[in-house]
Amino acid sequence: MLMINYFSSNFKLGILGGGQLGKMLLYETRKYDIQTLVMDPSEEAPCKISANQFITGDLMDYDTVLEFGRKVNVLTFEIESVNVEALKQLEKEGIKVYPSSDTLEKINDKSVQKKFYKATNIPTAAFNIFNSKAEFLEAENTGKIKLPVVWKSATGGYDGRGVQIIKSKEALEGIAEGVCIAEDLIPFKNELAVIVARNPSGEMKTFPVVEMEFHPTANQVEYVICPARIDESIAKKARKLAESVSKAYQHVGLLAVEMFQTEDDEIIVNEVAPRPHNSGHYSIEASYTNQFEQHLRAILDLPLGNTENKVSAVMVNLVGEEGHTGPAIYKNIEEILKMPGVTPHIYGKKITRPFRKMGHVTIVNKDMLIARSTAQAVKDAIKVISQ
Amino acid sequence: MLMINYFSSNFKLGILGGGQLGKMLLYETRKYDIQTLVMDPSEEAPCKISANQFITGDLMDYDTVLEFGRKVNVLTFEIESVNVEALKQLEKEGIKVYPSSDTLEKINDKSVQKKFYKATNIPTAAFNIFNSKAEFLEAENTGKIKLPVVWKSATGGYDGRGVQIIKSKEALEGIAEGVCIAEDLIPFKNELAVIVARNPSGEMKTFPVVEMEFHPTANQVEYVICPARIDESIAKKARKLAESVSKAYQHVGLLAVEMFQTEDDEIIVNEVAPRPHNSGHYSIEASYTNQFEQHLRAILDLPLGNTENKVSAVMVNLVGEEGHTGPAIYKNIEEILKMPGVTPHIYGKKITRPFRKMGHVTIVNKDMLIARSTAQAVKDAIKVISQ
Repeated sequence: MLMINYFSSNFKLGILGGGQLGKMLLYETRKYDIQTLVMDPSEEAPCKISANQFITGDLMDYDTVLEFGRKVNVLTFEIESVNVEALKQLEKEGIKVYPSSDTLEKINDKSVQKKFYKATNIPTAAFNIFNSKAEFLEAENTGKIKLPVVWKSATGGYDGRGVQIIKSKEALEGIAEGVCIAEDLIPFKNELAVIVARNPSGEMKTFPVVEMEFHPTANQVEYVICPARIDESIAKKARKLAESVSKAYQHVGLLAVEMFQTEDDEIIVNEVAPRPHNSGHYSIEASYTNQFEQHLRAILDLPLGNTENKVSAVMVNLVGEEGHTGPAIYKNIEEILKMPGVTPHIYGKKITRPFRKMGHVTIVNKDMLIARSTAQAVKDAIKVISQ
Repeated sequence: MLMINYFSSNFKLGILGGGQLGKMLLYETRKYDIQTLVMDPSEEAPCKISANQFITGDLMDYDTVLEFGRKVNVLTFEIESVNVEALKQLEKEGIKVYPSSDTLEKINDKSVQKKFYKATNIPTAAFNIFNSKAEFLEAENTGKIKLPVVWKSATGGYDGRGVQIIKSKEALEGIAEGVCIAEDLIPFKNELAVIVARNPSGEMKTFPVVEMEFHPTANQVEYVICPARIDESIAKKARKLAESVSKAYQHVGLLAVEMFQTEDDEIIVNEVAPRPHNSGHYSIEASYTNQFEQHLRAILDLPLGNTENKVSAVMVNLVGEEGHTGPAIYKNIEEILKMPGVTPHIYGKKITRPFRKMGHVTIVNKDMLIARSTAQAVKDAIKVISQ
């Protein structure tokens, strides 16, 4: 365990990306009084304030990321789309980059990610990789793959973009160009996620299993329920699997492992994110140690905190209403503030767009049933519209 | 209920004072994405970052406070030592000042505060007011007041300064000049506090009763325990009394009411603070709605949140060790981070001094006995020393 003095010291933490994940991470750096530098391309990023220094810059530009990284002692990121070559160079120069460039490379390209699972015997849906849309169509034509199939773009997928369930030949034409994956469509009972924290000393802790409900059309998480309403044996299996994934990557920081509980109660890995995750937002109100504090503890090689829940939680994403684009209004927010155990988090994005993540609301209660029904009331009441 | 759009809007909240209370209040304004302006005399104030605008200025200077207040829609303060005349002028100009200048005046001068309790039939220790040290000494000489007595300076008392229990004639000489109060020394079982939130619409909520243990020599709170380990009937009485004090002041915002539980189980008011309070810090980790979010809800005339505890809590102040003055080091902080349910809050003051409040640690657990024993371990382990 390093004994660096991080607290009210000259130690500097760098964060690549200034979105809502960075913003919530900054609550924790402020709590510990750790100096932070944040870089984001947007002048209007949610992290614009609260960091000791905010720098605008292109996260994909080698020189920009290199120059930024050289200003800090430890570098982390809240978004995967960063220049990995610059991270490698920074690691060579002795700057600690957590998660590492190696982990990020193994995760960013979903075809590499899938091959990694296969090589490390991590259960995942059977798949084929194609170098182009044409190859993919050809495979379907020749019957090498059969519909329905899950099509995934190898890169650039985020918030449902780059993932498509293809059930008909007509849908085939709509898919994007580029390297892609065809995955078997696995019938599942539940979509689950487990966040694992691991520090450089190898200490590892998992958060309880969460259960996700997706929006039918937007393919974004609609409810995140913690703890998941599953058998203890399934929960144990899911947490154990998540740990083995973190170990396989020799991951440092948070790793969000999205999984399926199949109809025969197997747990298979869908995909991972090497950072604080939407499925862990509930932890701010419900956990003894929230995911952002845990990420901070992990990358600073501090002891990891207690991941248990104080209370049950349901998280609702606040996404822009369809048909509304413009300056955001949080309609009926006063209504939801009347409901017990309801905490809205407004990310501070000025402009709302259909399905854009504008914030989230956490509902906590000692009784999960009450939390769940309150969450429904919250969802029915609040709308993100434009002025 | 006002239906102003506070969230990601042009609405501006002004905060006078940039210390730790303001810093923790800013976590909540960030969560709601409410624009803030903070003024503090120190360039190194904990609120230096996280506010949308930080302005250095003298909080006691009429013109400075007036100019600052004119920039905002609602003005609040995290310290009582502000220019009240400027607040009055701002109120005349239609700027909402919560708590009001009127409340602040009735509280800032402890002689006025005591007379107010008498006038409004709020139980408090019997007292005499003296216009000078000389008058006070004369009264003691002539037997008008008898030792032991509690001496309180009418103004400027904070963190134990300006309060003294005088048991001997020798101790009389040590007291400061100026208007003062001689209070009967009441034998008490417990020192309690209740935080009341009240919004302009008159909605009112109390937090659970907390029990305070003071440092024997520094006269600063050493442990704050929530819920207090007292009979439910006593707790009800204390919360009811706190509500009546808030009503009497027509208070808006948070009011921390410090009370004594006498040996015959009467509850009497010691003194109040019209702001978030050290005795409410536990609420960040333990309450459904923490005191800072509740203050924000109250002054913005939003619905008040649930004040119940999710778990039991003990709060330990991190004060500078005796014999240490200089840049602060948080010795053994890694040790306390290993303990379950332990959250340190480092305020970010660069220089430690004996008994200076440098931060606090909250210990939460479903079992109060475990929280209390962990708090002892925290207190024994961590020390704020200088480099």
